[in-house]
Amino acid sequence: MIRGKYLISRAGDSEDTSLVIADGAVFQRDGLIVDVGPYQSLRSRYEADHYLGGPEYLVLPGLVNAHHHGRGVSTLQMGTCDDSLETWILAGWGRRPYDHYLMTLYTALQMLESGTTTVMYNHPQTPVETLDADISEVLRGFLDAGMRVAFSVYFRNQNRVVYADDQTFLSGLPPDLADFIKQYLSLTDMTDDDYFALFERTHQQYASDPSGKVRVLLSPSNVQWNSDDFLQRTKQYASRYKTGVHMHLVESFYQREYGLQRWGKTPVAHLKDLEFLGPELSCAHAVWLTQEDIDLLADSQTSISHNPSSNLRLKNGVAPINRLLKQGVNLALGTDSTAINDDDDMLQEMRLATKLHREPGIGAPALSTHQSLKMATINAALPTCFQDEIGALEKGRRADMSLLRLSGMEAPYMDPDVSIVDRLLYRGKARDVAMVIIDGEVVMRDGQSTRVSREDVEKQLAELFSRPLEPQTLEARQRVRQLLPYVERFYQSWRPNTSL
Amino acid sequence: MIRGKYLISRAGDSEDTSLVIADGAVFQRDGLIVDVGPYQSLRSRYEADHYLGGPEYLVLPGLVNAHHHGRGVSTLQMGTCDDSLETWILAGWGRRPYDHYLMTLYTALQMLESGTTTVMYNHPQTPVETLDADISEVLRGFLDAGMRVAFSVYFRNQNRVVYADDQTFLSGLPPDLADFIKQYLSLTDMTDDDYFALFERTHQQYASDPSGKVRVLLSPSNVQWNSDDFLQRTKQYASRYKTGVHMHLVESFYQREYGLQRWGKTPVAHLKDLEFLGPELSCAHAVWLTQEDIDLLADSQTSISHNPSSNLRLKNGVAPINRLLKQGVNLALGTDSTAINDDDDMLQEMRLATKLHREPGIGAPALSTHQSLKMATINAALPTCFQDEIGALEKGRRADMSLLRLSGMEAPYMDPDVSIVDRLLYRGKARDVAMVIIDGEVVMRDGQSTRVSREDVEKQLAELFSRPLEPQTLEARQRVRQLLPYVERFYQSWRPNTSL
Repeated sequence: MIRGKYLISRAGDSEDTSLVIADGAVFQRDGLIVDVGPYQSLRSRYEADHYLGGPEYLVLPGLVNAHHHGRGVSTLQMGTCDDSLETWILAGWGRRPYDHYLMTLYTALQMLESGTTTVMYNHPQTPVETLDADISEVLRGFLDAGMRVAFSVYFRNQNRVVYADDQTFLSGLPPDLADFIKQYLSLTDMTDDDYFALFERTHQQYASDPSGKVRVLLSPSNVQWNSDDFLQRTKQYASRYKTGVHMHLVESFYQREYGLQRWGKTPVAHLKDLEFLGPELSCAHAVWLTQEDIDLLADSQTSISHNPSSNLRLKNGVAPINRLLKQGVNLALGTDSTAINDDDDMLQEMRLATKLHREPGIGAPALSTHQSLKMATINAALPTCFQDEIGALEKGRRADMSLLRLSGMEAPYMDPDVSIVDRLLYRGKARDVAMVIIDGEVVMRDGQSTRVSREDVEKQLAELFSRPLEPQTLEARQRVRQLLPYVERFYQSWRPNTSL
Repeated sequence: MIRGKYLISRAGDSEDTSLVIADGAVFQRDGLIVDVGPYQSLRSRYEADHYLGGPEYLVLPGLVNAHHHGRGVSTLQMGTCDDSLETWILAGWGRRPYDHYLMTLYTALQMLESGTTTVMYNHPQTPVETLDADISEVLRGFLDAGMRVAFSVYFRNQNRVVYADDQTFLSGLPPDLADFIKQYLSLTDMTDDDYFALFERTHQQYASDPSGKVRVLLSPSNVQWNSDDFLQRTKQYASRYKTGVHMHLVESFYQREYGLQRWGKTPVAHLKDLEFLGPELSCAHAVWLTQEDIDLLADSQTSISHNPSSNLRLKNGVAPINRLLKQGVNLALGTDSTAINDDDDMLQEMRLATKLHREPGIGAPALSTHQSLKMATINAALPTCFQDEIGALEKGRRADMSLLRLSGMEAPYMDPDVSIVDRLLYRGKARDVAMVIIDGEVVMRDGQSTRVSREDVEKQLAELFSRPLEPQTLEARQRVRQLLPYVERFYQSWRPNTSL
């Protein structure tokens, strides 16, 4: 039995309200929520083994980070400063290889610290030679930390240097540079068949995982990185395995421009032509949308994962969240492993979203605190494929939640007219998170994981990274420096129309 | 002698660099910086009474919050949710009266916690009856906490309900509502002469304060709230007393529209006509600027205090920071007491500024980390009138600085290629601030003030606010609810041109 002075049962049941129970409690058994209601009423009806929480806490549904790439030691820490997406991705070639298990533990601990219980994790296409092992290590990491994970491996089979044919672009480079890149790309080369076989292996393996905490999804990386044929096959596999598809979409304006040049239409319109849109699809970013795109997303019930920090950091702009909301698009929220404070804090990400989408003037659209919390909870349940198992504290869902100390938000005074959702969204911080429960299990108590020692993980990571930079890392950095002027020149000739 | 693994002596000496001394130290005597340089070199030349810091710290110039209104218990905590500026200000009439000394101590402690050592504090026009006493209490608060303060009282003598004549607007309201407002406004009624007499009293009193920590400035609140005659007299007083002028400017697009309707030109152009612009003037917000406005600000060496959090929270949009920077306008940074996390954290405010002004695309303008740190340090020295006494760690300036533990930014790993300014601006947090020194005195150690007990202040505030809401607060809230529809109707007829 978990009790709070306030219990947010379901966020954003209307634009300006959430379902909140004063002095509320959750009664759960074996990870399943048996009942939710006023504490006194539950107390009289159920006998619990343990009583957690109390009147000094807020009980909140577990937050869902709806777009994430791991990397507990951040890209900045690994030497990649923020830049425009297209050049930033290439700079990432110069990051060091790392231990997938430890890095996943570390990112999971950070996420738990802000009350995140489920992550939509999109695995980078690591070298084919180690890919299966990397996947096992990542999933072992999330499961050992106690988190729930919607897992996918993203796949790119074209335009991997710039948004144009690899061979053509490489032919314009100095031969030694082109050779390096060819070799670098060959490490991750796999056929479409290989990708689907990998998906099937992984899906099969984790479908039967006794934890029930893993969903395996498909992931074409983005329209410019995948052939139409691959997209269509993805759709078939998704239908056959009744799973979700997660991808990136119009993150930068160059990506929209690619569509306009390639098909004479926006990437969203192209996906519509391919009959690829649909309720099983979630798209990260979706910054550069036309009004027609927004209508197509709404009509097809496609979900969007909004990543406000990442969109700012990687110079992609501000997504049209209020217009998406108006059309009824299902909006989720994620950090993309590049949160504003470099720490995957979902409380901070919700806050940034709430502040960022306040359009100027009286009566102009503004994302409400309730909507923002909804994006980080119930709205994210669908795209993660955990569907009605998570996202709210309601009978029949899994017992994923966090307890926040109210004192940090309310001391020394809080006006009685301010709603608890406003208190949380304006002032709640990771430091207020006292306890995290996933599947009925306390996985974090007093800011400390009950399963993994953060200190040990940090120590091991520090030791591994204390080794000198690897020769291949140093070479990759030098090659990227050599490559970037060609890339900048390539995009210079693009004159993206930002006014669509 | 204060030592750090890195010592940032001066931020942003170029667009992409800052003056950093590796294993650097400051040697100060009686609050004056005698020397700055490599630790070993200073160690051999000076004998210090105390040795502070060490190789696990970053030494940073004290941060300057360049626009602030006090209110340690935030407007949200006092019951005012974020809204459009014009309606939000009116909702503020329904906030409770408070103890100015305690509230100032509390806001000062919060600011110190993120390494802020100087504040540009703009006092609200509290009731005439208590104004002198309120000012004394506020300044006693800042001085007792150990902070440096540039103090001004803002003054409004017209258009105090909407941006139109008070009498005319009130004549359109129900008589009981109009009577309430008339009475409410009369509490703060003072003549221009009264204001300047108050300024002279305050200036005289604190010019001779032995701490040397107070500067008293003038403050017309904003062009739509002050007559031209008042502005011109302000300019004369500023010149006579060799002090600064601090004001708000084109915070909302309604404010620009007011200028266009009233004078057929922007507020900035109007100030130019009045010969009001100049190096002694700093303007908060400055969101709705035309390119011509920006040129006028640059030519006149007027400073701007940028308030990114506040501009988002109060629905005013995003200021054209990159264009201001390009024209060479002196840009400072402030929280306006409405920081994104409701806590006046200047590290977070610098970070938000850095992320917010990253324009889409390769090569598009982006505020650099060095520039952002410069806005919060050396650039703010001029408008606070502490001029070359603060803002950098250099010989001859006052010893205002903070020490941050590097581990929070760097553990478990930090790539050697990442500059210390990037480490700080991407990852530094208030929790990393280990020590704050102002005028050579340690005012905060291990997150605790050495002068004031945060616990006591919180306890006293909690006790005062535990009393029931005052009858006049409840009445004001009810009256504001009654008033707001008229205000919304008033602005509905404005069709601001946002494309200028």
